[in-house]
Amino acid sequence: MPVAYRAVETVDSVPGIEVATAAAGIRYRDRDDLVLFRLAKGATVTVVTTQNRFCAAPVRIVREHMALAHEHGRSPVALLINAGNANAGTGADGLRRARDVNAMLAAQLGIDASQVLPFSTGVIGEPLPLEPFERALPVLIKALKHEDGPVWIAAAKAIATTDIVHKAATRRFAVSGGDVVLTGVAKGSGMIHPNMATMLAFVGTNARLAQADADRYWRDVMARSFNAITVDGDTSTNDCAVLMARSVDSAEGVDLATDAEIGAFREALESLCVELAEAIVRDGEGATKFVDIRIDRAKDDAEARAVAETVASSPLVKTALFASDPNWGRILAAVGRAPVAQLLLEQVTIDVNGVRIVEHGGRAANYTEAAGAAAFAESDIRIVINLGVPGGTGSARKMTCDFSYDYVRINAEYRS
Amino acid sequence: MPVAYRAVETVDSVPGIEVATAAAGIRYRDRDDLVLFRLAKGATVTVVTTQNRFCAAPVRIVREHMALAHEHGRSPVALLINAGNANAGTGADGLRRARDVNAMLAAQLGIDASQVLPFSTGVIGEPLPLEPFERALPVLIKALKHEDGPVWIAAAKAIATTDIVHKAATRRFAVSGGDVVLTGVAKGSGMIHPNMATMLAFVGTNARLAQADADRYWRDVMARSFNAITVDGDTSTNDCAVLMARSVDSAEGVDLATDAEIGAFREALESLCVELAEAIVRDGEGATKFVDIRIDRAKDDAEARAVAETVASSPLVKTALFASDPNWGRILAAVGRAPVAQLLLEQVTIDVNGVRIVEHGGRAANYTEAAGAAAFAESDIRIVINLGVPGGTGSARKMTCDFSYDYVRINAEYRS
Repeated sequence: MPVAYRAVETVDSVPGIEVATAAAGIRYRDRDDLVLFRLAKGATVTVVTTQNRFCAAPVRIVREHMALAHEHGRSPVALLINAGNANAGTGADGLRRARDVNAMLAAQLGIDASQVLPFSTGVIGEPLPLEPFERALPVLIKALKHEDGPVWIAAAKAIATTDIVHKAATRRFAVSGGDVVLTGVAKGSGMIHPNMATMLAFVGTNARLAQADADRYWRDVMARSFNAITVDGDTSTNDCAVLMARSVDSAEGVDLATDAEIGAFREALESLCVELAEAIVRDGEGATKFVDIRIDRAKDDAEARAVAETVASSPLVKTALFASDPNWGRILAAVGRAPVAQLLLEQVTIDVNGVRIVEHGGRAANYTEAAGAAAFAESDIRIVINLGVPGGTGSARKMTCDFSYDYVRINAEYRS
Repeated sequence: MPVAYRAVETVDSVPGIEVATAAAGIRYRDRDDLVLFRLAKGATVTVVTTQNRFCAAPVRIVREHMALAHEHGRSPVALLINAGNANAGTGADGLRRARDVNAMLAAQLGIDASQVLPFSTGVIGEPLPLEPFERALPVLIKALKHEDGPVWIAAAKAIATTDIVHKAATRRFAVSGGDVVLTGVAKGSGMIHPNMATMLAFVGTNARLAQADADRYWRDVMARSFNAITVDGDTSTNDCAVLMARSVDSAEGVDLATDAEIGAFREALESLCVELAEAIVRDGEGATKFVDIRIDRAKDDAEARAVAETVASSPLVKTALFASDPNWGRILAAVGRAPVAQLLLEQVTIDVNGVRIVEHGGRAANYTEAAGAAAFAESDIRIVINLGVPGGTGSARKMTCDFSYDYVRINAEYRS
């Protein structure tokens, strides 16, 4: 079961975005596995894609279409997401199949194929079957609905693969021009069920954003949300995160008129994305702990991230957390091997859920095994590591989960 | 049980090196946990220590004493190794305790404390108890034996912690000046039982080596042996590898008189260290597969190592191997996220035990699930990844093991 997470069941719909789901039967039976977003005229779309060089066919197409959109100054109109097949590691044939599906959808929507953004999640290395799309696309298009919150929840469920719960979140706040709405769905695939090897997130808003602003806000928010969780060593073949907004030329949507309103928007966007990112970690199959690692007083943010990443991906730290074992030596050892230029042992302090564990290069003077055991027994574990670099201003946060028997079971039994 | 590994029960003794073991009861009962090597006059010693910044107290002392040895042009005389307590993460008190033990031994041997090199392996963060050393050192010194192969085997057993089998290896070859002998012992602690967080290796030889040559040979051999295995993300707090040889001024020992003899020595040294390093991986608790990863045609060796390291430390690849599941997409995804400057998807080929699995950015044309299943069913898995970088000459090898339920069990149940 997810660690201290209750799925959101009600979200606000987003004016300007139609949503639909359908059951194509690509891999799953008796559930929806296809989602379509259709954007009203005057949309601003920004996408962050995986850094993995073996990116899946749909990711390559998304990049291509986003480049065309920028070139022609026209935004994508349709986003099509399928669960069950990642269309990754499928070479030229996979690219052809993804294009075929795109063309089908574009023809039925009366748009150019380059205005479709495709996303896939599921098994790697199997050919994407076309028949399910042929059957389901007309149904999907017919089902498109305006102004319907429940369809967003259905979409969150339809993009899920090994997720136990669906992930959705919503924000609403008033500005001078009206109510700004943000609603997002995500699926993941943390460190914990990476079979499906994908983190996908789609956030829609009725705020009017210039392309350059949307790009910048979205990239900034990534570092503190979806890039602050360990999704199986950073990046998979299919990871994508999309922000869909209104354009500044749009007749609809709400303007962010002042710096305060922009600030409120960015704050809402960040808190929504952090909520979705946390949900991914908390839903790690096999996860029994949610682990929030904070690095302070590093030389710079890059070194802070390097230390956070090393601790967060240490199997030793993660198995100790699973065992609720205050084995602080493992945290210390992980910090010690992090790839940073300088590390002053004597300056480092480590706190776990408020208990000072390490100082002066060893066990803290006031540390007791009982206090450590109590701290590690919590289901939410907050590890604060202060590197104490003189003049250091770097900090970083990384969220992860523990490493349990179920992690091995899930990943070993998959495909069998 | 170790993967296809049978422990060596007989090794040659090394002229010029006395060995002894004793039971100090530091942590273990009813077994030896203390080893002493005493080197005859005219020794050449070279040490490689962990890169971990939180290195243990004994490691700091080893570095200090090696620096003094170089400064004064005099070599260490005694190596003392204890199992059961790593004396790591113990701050200033740990350093004091290690120095106290050193002083005790030096006084009894009639040498300077700086001529002792201490090594510890075991639990992190607990104070090193002094009483066991006080009791056992006289016994240990009395037990010192020349020319006795079985004591080397006893030493291999005494330095073990969670090792299932002891690791020892030996080589002998003739040169113009007589027989060159190399005998080594190691303990580990691969990715698989890193509780004890330490890889230790001690190799002795009667070959006469100049200090600079010994240093160079030893560092060169590291890259292809002990540094080519994943010991829990590269380096622990206590890792040390020591080569003990005769000095060129020594009255005893065997000269390496020609380039051919030097070549033969370096070859023997490498093959011995590879044997010990492989043994560490094969004895990984929980390990059911020995995995040998070879990267070819990378831009350079550094990029080859980066790819090898990423694949070898991927929990996804390791759990798939445990399941004997030919889930090649995971290997592909790991290659794709390796931190290298350039990667041409279309050029990469992946072979597993001789079966071509990936080519042209996807599943190989002739690949069949049956062939893949047969390849992954072996207990020894050889993965060859050719990156196909035009003009690339980089290569690397990394040995690791799979990731099983027992890995989690061992690491989660430790200390409980």
